[in-house]
Amino acid sequence: MPDSQEAKKLSNQIEEINEALNDGMIVQVREVLSTMPSCDVALLLESSRSRTRSEIWQLIEPDQYSDVLEDLSEDVRNGIIRQMVPEILADALEEMDTDDLVETLSGLPEAVSQDALSSMDEQDRQRAEQALSYGEDTAGFIMNTDTITLRPEVTVDVILRYLRLKGNIPKGTDTFYVVDRSDQLIGSVPVTELLTARPAVKVEKLMTQDSVAVPVDMHENEVASLFERYDWLSAPVIDKENRLVGRITIDDVVDIIREGAEHSMMSMAGLDDEEDTFAPVIKSTKKRSVWLGVNLVTALMAAAVSDLFEATLSQLAVLAILNTIVPSMGGAAGNQTLTLVIRGMALGHVSDSNARWLIGKELAIGFFNGVIWALLIASVIALWKQDLMLGGVIAFAMMVNMIAAGLAGAMLPVMMKKMNIDPALAGSVILTTITDVVGIFAFLGTATWLLL
Amino acid sequence: MPDSQEAKKLSNQIEEINEALNDGMIVQVREVLSTMPSCDVALLLESSRSRTRSEIWQLIEPDQYSDVLEDLSEDVRNGIIRQMVPEILADALEEMDTDDLVETLSGLPEAVSQDALSSMDEQDRQRAEQALSYGEDTAGFIMNTDTITLRPEVTVDVILRYLRLKGNIPKGTDTFYVVDRSDQLIGSVPVTELLTARPAVKVEKLMTQDSVAVPVDMHENEVASLFERYDWLSAPVIDKENRLVGRITIDDVVDIIREGAEHSMMSMAGLDDEEDTFAPVIKSTKKRSVWLGVNLVTALMAAAVSDLFEATLSQLAVLAILNTIVPSMGGAAGNQTLTLVIRGMALGHVSDSNARWLIGKELAIGFFNGVIWALLIASVIALWKQDLMLGGVIAFAMMVNMIAAGLAGAMLPVMMKKMNIDPALAGSVILTTITDVVGIFAFLGTATWLLL
Repeated sequence: MPDSQEAKKLSNQIEEINEALNDGMIVQVREVLSTMPSCDVALLLESSRSRTRSEIWQLIEPDQYSDVLEDLSEDVRNGIIRQMVPEILADALEEMDTDDLVETLSGLPEAVSQDALSSMDEQDRQRAEQALSYGEDTAGFIMNTDTITLRPEVTVDVILRYLRLKGNIPKGTDTFYVVDRSDQLIGSVPVTELLTARPAVKVEKLMTQDSVAVPVDMHENEVASLFERYDWLSAPVIDKENRLVGRITIDDVVDIIREGAEHSMMSMAGLDDEEDTFAPVIKSTKKRSVWLGVNLVTALMAAAVSDLFEATLSQLAVLAILNTIVPSMGGAAGNQTLTLVIRGMALGHVSDSNARWLIGKELAIGFFNGVIWALLIASVIALWKQDLMLGGVIAFAMMVNMIAAGLAGAMLPVMMKKMNIDPALAGSVILTTITDVVGIFAFLGTATWLLL
Repeated sequence: MPDSQEAKKLSNQIEEINEALNDGMIVQVREVLSTMPSCDVALLLESSRSRTRSEIWQLIEPDQYSDVLEDLSEDVRNGIIRQMVPEILADALEEMDTDDLVETLSGLPEAVSQDALSSMDEQDRQRAEQALSYGEDTAGFIMNTDTITLRPEVTVDVILRYLRLKGNIPKGTDTFYVVDRSDQLIGSVPVTELLTARPAVKVEKLMTQDSVAVPVDMHENEVASLFERYDWLSAPVIDKENRLVGRITIDDVVDIIREGAEHSMMSMAGLDDEEDTFAPVIKSTKKRSVWLGVNLVTALMAAAVSDLFEATLSQLAVLAILNTIVPSMGGAAGNQTLTLVIRGMALGHVSDSNARWLIGKELAIGFFNGVIWALLIASVIALWKQDLMLGGVIAFAMMVNMIAAGLAGAMLPVMMKKMNIDPALAGSVILTTITDVVGIFAFLGTATWLLL
């Protein structure tokens, strides 16, 4: 990861702005902020601690509010909105595109979003309530409604004259959609087609008829994987009656793709996706405590298993010393399998038809891992503790636990997905519990049987 | 994660194709494959085990080769290419866009890519060698060279007539770039501008002059974060003399964004980014063994620390039972911090200017975590083992280890980045080693001192 020029520039800017704030150079900071693009102001806010955030926010021009809010992550945005007067918030919301407006509203507490909605003008409120009605994480939620539609019988010449009259085309438009009299989607024409077509040609001659449309209630993750697979820049959204209701553009989908990929990593470490790196200490401590609580229960369960072998442990202290090796190796191997299967599911590679084969494969890897690491650990222990039998006991436990790890790592996500539980969230805790319990039982159990 | 329609359809298709292959219905499978879009054929290959892959590949029409190869992940693609005759591979490569061609070649072993290059025709070989010379992971590597350029003095009318004559515009073109006589980039015109502009207007009146260009040697991750921040669909690429040399489109950047976000998750579990879920058992076992080897060394180090306290452990078996709780909690808390800081760095939120503050924050969270979990574990142990003193000892160790975990989790990635080591790759092993060693020392050390 080479240190990027851009990152350095921003890092310097943050430092300068902080210094200027400390020196009370309010006017200068206000001036710098007004020249920065909204995405950089958002990054500056996200990279600052919460006290500095409020100070900076007060120096931003109100006409920048909506752009900056759009670019902020949910946690940081909500923190700022909580300090805004409903009327000013409503003004900022009204300026947003439907997709950003809805995303912002949906993250707010019910009372705050109701206040904001009732301060908005009639037309914008209806627009927001319509989109909110599609339900969070659906295509309807992330779509825009500023779509330009064409009729099949119109010629290119007429369209070009209409567009010149209209003067501007919504951002991110790469395709025009063709609809009939009842708004049914019947085809699409790329913007570039209009440039190369002869003026007298009719739309129906130009349009592609078999273009794929996104149903308004499709889950956003599914929308994202369609965009990724087919390299789309935008896609039409249709309702149940095949009527065109909006379009989704790649810039919103990029966020979903990145968040989807990050989700697994954050969940596996017991973090909230939207966790704000610069949130206050108490808030962060609270957010992370659930996971640590679960981890404590797991650790106590492992201790309870060891407790069953107290007599053995009190006779052979060497077992206490080596007791963590087998569980640790099982946890590491199982986590590799778990991570791979979770990613395979997210990419759409793992499905019912090949799950059984995959479990078999990971079982086989568990077996080979078992052989390799059992032999290695047996040699190490036999040499270190000068005890061949002890080496044999730990080798056997390693063998058993590696197979259990491969099996659990592959089966857990498949089973959890069937039960509609997110494997990234709970998979690694359950896996570690299994590899701990199996590892300790196998090691201390075999030792009790053979060494005493 | 609701089970998607698309995923189900594909799952059924895979099953049907597998059955058809088993029944020897070669002709039918060939027919199905020829009607599938190349991205679906690629997904089918990625979702199949390696033996089935070769069978399917032999049934694909040679004119589909280049499209399917483009859509495959590196590991799977290389496996297939290794079975191809150089001449046929060269034919497929010649049909690719420059960016895909270069990506494919760079992943191949030197001998195979040289063979392929020398089987290609002169013009394509030069195109490939030019792009390869920019070096892997740079803007030059992922750019395309099929850019349409405009001159400032030309009118919209002339351009439209030229485009109609030319007949087609390269895929993903949303902006035309304006260059002067010496190919210097001087501005850009969105495609949609040309549609709304009056025919007599000159390009110099339409163009935006302050458009940002990507230097040809910029790292692809930096390119991706620019795209994400500014919601670009494409960007011009310039060489050191400010000459336009190509353009980068969002579809290539989407892959980089997803892979970048996945990279951390895969690395933290000790997996290769490109690890193929359906690779043969032996290959997978080998790929994962480095990480397990490192983990074994870590586990042995923890055991060696416990070994220092053998006398204590042999007198009090209860210590052996509780010995894993403090390291486990430290590892979980430290991993939360580590993951958050690694993500913060990837998003550009964490830099030199706020790193010290962040370390301070995580130290404070470590302290609060210490207080909370020390009190809780002390109560549990005092009740379970009916030993107040033992509860006090484990509470103290928990306190020490939680602070160490917060400090290590925040400092490690900052330090590793300074040393140009990828924190996602080695961070969690080093962290776990620290929390294991500190946790065991604190627990068994205090116990030796106070309980014996």
